[in-house]
Amino acid sequence: MVTACTLDTELAQDAFHGMKGATACAKEYIAAQPAGVWLDLDGAVDERDKGTPDDWIPRHPELVRLTGLHPFNCEPPLSLCMAQGFICPPQLHYVRNHGAVPVKTPTAEARQRVWDEWRVAVVGLVDKPLNVSMADLQRLPLRQLPVLLVCAGNRRKEQNMVKQTIGFSWGPTAWATTIWGGCRLADLLRAAGVRDDPEGKLHVHFRGPTGELPKGDDGSYGTSIPLHRALDPANDVLVAWEQNGRALTPDHGFPVRLIIPGYIGGRMIKWLPHIEVAPAESSNFYHFMDNRVLPVGVTPESATAEGWWYKPEYIINELNTNSAMASPAHDETLRVTPDALAGETYTIRGYAYAGGGKKVIRAEISLDGGVTWEGGVVSHPETPTEYGRYWCHALWSFDVSVARLLGAKEVCCRAWDSHMNTQPNHLTWNVMGMLNNPIFRVRIHRAYARGVVSELRFEHPTMPGKQPGGWMEAENAAASASQSPLVSGLKRIASGISLLNINATMQRTPSAQSQLSTRAAHSPPTSPPPASMNEIAAGGVAPPPPAAPPARAGPITLEELAKHTDRADAWLAIRGLVYHIPPSYLKEHPGGADSILAVAGTDATLSYEEVGHSDNAEKILRRFKIGELPREPGLLDAVPVMPIACALVGAGSVFALRVLARKIAA
Amino acid sequence: MVTACTLDTELAQDAFHGMKGATACAKEYIAAQPAGVWLDLDGAVDERDKGTPDDWIPRHPELVRLTGLHPFNCEPPLSLCMAQGFICPPQLHYVRNHGAVPVKTPTAEARQRVWDEWRVAVVGLVDKPLNVSMADLQRLPLRQLPVLLVCAGNRRKEQNMVKQTIGFSWGPTAWATTIWGGCRLADLLRAAGVRDDPEGKLHVHFRGPTGELPKGDDGSYGTSIPLHRALDPANDVLVAWEQNGRALTPDHGFPVRLIIPGYIGGRMIKWLPHIEVAPAESSNFYHFMDNRVLPVGVTPESATAEGWWYKPEYIINELNTNSAMASPAHDETLRVTPDALAGETYTIRGYAYAGGGKKVIRAEISLDGGVTWEGGVVSHPETPTEYGRYWCHALWSFDVSVARLLGAKEVCCRAWDSHMNTQPNHLTWNVMGMLNNPIFRVRIHRAYARGVVSELRFEHPTMPGKQPGGWMEAENAAASASQSPLVSGLKRIASGISLLNINATMQRTPSAQSQLSTRAAHSPPTSPPPASMNEIAAGGVAPPPPAAPPARAGPITLEELAKHTDRADAWLAIRGLVYHIPPSYLKEHPGGADSILAVAGTDATLSYEEVGHSDNAEKILRRFKIGELPREPGLLDAVPVMPIACALVGAGSVFALRVLARKIAA
Repeated sequence: MVTACTLDTELAQDAFHGMKGATACAKEYIAAQPAGVWLDLDGAVDERDKGTPDDWIPRHPELVRLTGLHPFNCEPPLSLCMAQGFICPPQLHYVRNHGAVPVKTPTAEARQRVWDEWRVAVVGLVDKPLNVSMADLQRLPLRQLPVLLVCAGNRRKEQNMVKQTIGFSWGPTAWATTIWGGCRLADLLRAAGVRDDPEGKLHVHFRGPTGELPKGDDGSYGTSIPLHRALDPANDVLVAWEQNGRALTPDHGFPVRLIIPGYIGGRMIKWLPHIEVAPAESSNFYHFMDNRVLPVGVTPESATAEGWWYKPEYIINELNTNSAMASPAHDETLRVTPDALAGETYTIRGYAYAGGGKKVIRAEISLDGGVTWEGGVVSHPETPTEYGRYWCHALWSFDVSVARLLGAKEVCCRAWDSHMNTQPNHLTWNVMGMLNNPIFRVRIHRAYARGVVSELRFEHPTMPGKQPGGWMEAENAAASASQSPLVSGLKRIASGISLLNINATMQRTPSAQSQLSTRAAHSPPTSPPPASMNEIAAGGVAPPPPAAPPARAGPITLEELAKHTDRADAWLAIRGLVYHIPPSYLKEHPGGADSILAVAGTDATLSYEEVGHSDNAEKILRRFKIGELPREPGLLDAVPVMPIACALVGAGSVFALRVLARKIAA
Repeated sequence: MVTACTLDTELAQDAFHGMKGATACAKEYIAAQPAGVWLDLDGAVDERDKGTPDDWIPRHPELVRLTGLHPFNCEPPLSLCMAQGFICPPQLHYVRNHGAVPVKTPTAEARQRVWDEWRVAVVGLVDKPLNVSMADLQRLPLRQLPVLLVCAGNRRKEQNMVKQTIGFSWGPTAWATTIWGGCRLADLLRAAGVRDDPEGKLHVHFRGPTGELPKGDDGSYGTSIPLHRALDPANDVLVAWEQNGRALTPDHGFPVRLIIPGYIGGRMIKWLPHIEVAPAESSNFYHFMDNRVLPVGVTPESATAEGWWYKPEYIINELNTNSAMASPAHDETLRVTPDALAGETYTIRGYAYAGGGKKVIRAEISLDGGVTWEGGVVSHPETPTEYGRYWCHALWSFDVSVARLLGAKEVCCRAWDSHMNTQPNHLTWNVMGMLNNPIFRVRIHRAYARGVVSELRFEHPTMPGKQPGGWMEAENAAASASQSPLVSGLKRIASGISLLNINATMQRTPSAQSQLSTRAAHSPPTSPPPASMNEIAAGGVAPPPPAAPPARAGPITLEELAKHTDRADAWLAIRGLVYHIPPSYLKEHPGGADSILAVAGTDATLSYEEVGHSDNAEKILRRFKIGELPREPGLLDAVPVMPIACALVGAGSVFALRVLARKIAA
């Protein structure tokens, strides 16, 4: 079997050095698992993955899927994640895949073959270029660490509720701490004779398999970090082949991946075949066109037109300080009785983290909307590394009397790191919706019986993906219905702020709206992109529009639609209109061609909306319109599988609806 | 002469490695200085220092003095600091002295003797303990870096306007970037055969001269940092003997001091004689009783009673992200003419910094009180180190039309660092008033002529020290006069928030005040202080009260007061009451015995108030009351030097008043 590196307790004890707490935790965790809890790679494939390129990967049924049919991006429900304790089982760990899992290992034999044949090249500015096997890697000293991974898009749904970003709607659980094991990247680079870098100008590039993704020169996902970051042992950059003592799962990079503690997940290349020391940072498409926080007001169009992608100061690497509340959960209720009011307490719980190895030193609660704050109890199940770094999330709790909750409109939380940075009271919108970390606000609603409050109900800001619910949705709906100045204000200011802020502004002063409309343009870029980047830009986010397909006269029937499923001739329907997606655009699609082809020939409305598309995407889509579906039957009836689908919608499973729709249409 | 290490340009070019920008800047700076601008150590001593232990040190007359007569703590006016360009002249660099300058070098001969005879001991867990001379240090490789130093109390005055902390009132200029030169601490430790620290448990202790300060076992100022921090070359911890290419000045640590880039100034020991590698962090009084940010609600009393000083998570090391506005300056005016309104712009300017080597990537301006923000232009006159660290402040600017300023009530600024941390909208009070970094708010006032606005006047939140002015003072006064709920609210909530917040709360909901009063107690300490710390606590901030001196019957005349100036028998008057400060308290006084003895026998009201004393200090003082001054003449007339003093007060110089009062009383 492949899992040669089990978490041997003696070995772990040595390898963890100053991390006894984490080691003990890891051991306890593994010992406490009932037999069979580990994901069986030969297990059943989820119905929703049937027919996709990933239809060989068993996945946990309770993961919340965020990007339609394909590719696979998911997070666990927050309460389920927290219930696992400090160390998350890999099968509940959030997944961020840009395309299909490129290393296919549907059988034990395939896994063993990949393990035996995999090579990692270490090339570039090194004296002894290497091409090492997994067995070679395992000869380097083993380092095992509990490390928190966080997608830079964690909590992006809140940004999307203000204005759609170019990213999909992560909820508050795009994170997990597991125990990663492998060798230090520094040891591997030294084995390759990496050169000295006295001026700090070198970088280490990493990339995944070529040809797996639609963008860039070679279709690989690649990025880079400064060489000094990789070489400093305090940073614990790992080339990892085990998670929680077992081989990696397909979704997490089998057979080997990069781990950069304290960084955003987007730099931790999976299915890693290639490492290169180079004089400049990576020019990979995904290095420049992803993982940036651009200033509010920068749009997908202006980002490219004005060169924002190439301004080095807007790259993001270290995670910022963040926290959210798990208890009370969304829609949780609390009975209010005379006894409860007389002295019972409720324990508020949540998670917090800080990037770059910093420690979370405080978690605080506010019952007055962020005006005054009270300190909770923070616990770190890990102990710091021998370099004083904290690489994991923290847990926190706060006991509050039920009587105090009764008097509050919302409960908010925020964390502070050891550098005394904390979370802002309101979000700042950015075009990629990344590193969103305002204070987390849970609204409190009251139910009455015989004139007195009988129950409190808690409401989170949003639910992940396209799941309905949350007070931000309710406020959006209320704003639209009343056609209040709020809506026009929102549009005009490019959504730099949350609904809460706008509300406050509108209430405060009648002239606020006119102030909002006078926002000056952002400062223009101070330098043009480097020449080598212009090529990427030309093929990038805002390509020259392909020629529009000729429009059809009259309605397009479902039968006709169903015939157009090929790459050269892909049609799909969205909200009653039919679009012909030209091959030239398929390869530009940020979500990849496969995610479009998977729904070609069908009504793709639900898939399209679930992913969450930006205003720019809407504009591009309009160029491809070739006609419309017949007016009758209605939108839902237009899907051929309606009789079954409707029953399922009635049961609340829009996911199952889409899966069935696709299967029958295929 | 002592200044053996001038900033030789070739040498600097080599030493700076990747810091060409900073090197060039340093060279330009030094070349551009007119002859004689360097502080002449043989120059005249400021009148205000005459009669103090520092009466041999020439100091820049425009420095704003913050702690009465003695010890010397000062900052330059913000506009004066900014006018120097990126590199500050040492004579305008803020100074934080806990007592007199302990290394006396009033003559060139004395300086040379100190330089020749100074030794730095390197002891503890090292294989080859050292006792090195300055010449020995100079044999180690020279490292020269522009480094920003910031007192952790920068902007504390704003905290003190909400509620007096136990610190004095720094304005927004407790910072400066100069070029520090010396050897790496790591090189010195390696020369001493420092032992390996595979578990990250060792610390490096530093202390200044013994016997210089009133507290602790040996009267030294001492602290420590983790050994791995000192050994990692990326951190650039220096043992420094030059500033801007010259020998250190007395106030900045001649002959040698520590520089820890990215850290708060309070860890950078001056007049450094002693370095020790040890298994635990420093137990020096000033390591535990200073440089902490305790949660809001912790008071001087509860901090000691509940063991807060010893909770390791509340230590502060790295600076947090901060910014402030220099233009418009406080009380600056801007003419508003039809031409100006038709198209003129005003350039807002300021500084920003982030701790721990992080880069400032954005500076933003808000014209609506922190609701919406617009991006300015950030410039870094430094280039990063070869390890990608930014150790200096950044400068920023934002061009705004005069018409937009006309429509705004205030202009606010905030910065963002490369980890996407920013500044909070409101301050969070803490008992030491440290690392205060809310958005910086400048109010805009209008003057009218013939019914239209003719001029805008800008008002900063505060002025440094006891200087009057600023909108926070005005709001405090307005609140007191009207006896509004604001004042009682402020008192009750232990001042966790700014006046602005309270205002908003009070206006928003009538029940806010009652909510404020229900704040729960902070969580109790989870662990007792280590045994070795209990001894420090016993002699610490809240010692057992000395026996109260017997009260006198009837008023105490000025003639009688003037007789009691000895250490054994020190009396002073404050606000008409006379106090006898017992010898047992003199050594406990946080500001040192000298600062009390300097005003013994006089009316010390102005000195006492200028320093800024906490509620706890007031309580301690009350225990020492022995009587009162005669009711007539009034307070000011009670000072023997009144005829001269009054004339000077008329001219606005309260400093000169105190100096004269002291000289004539001496």
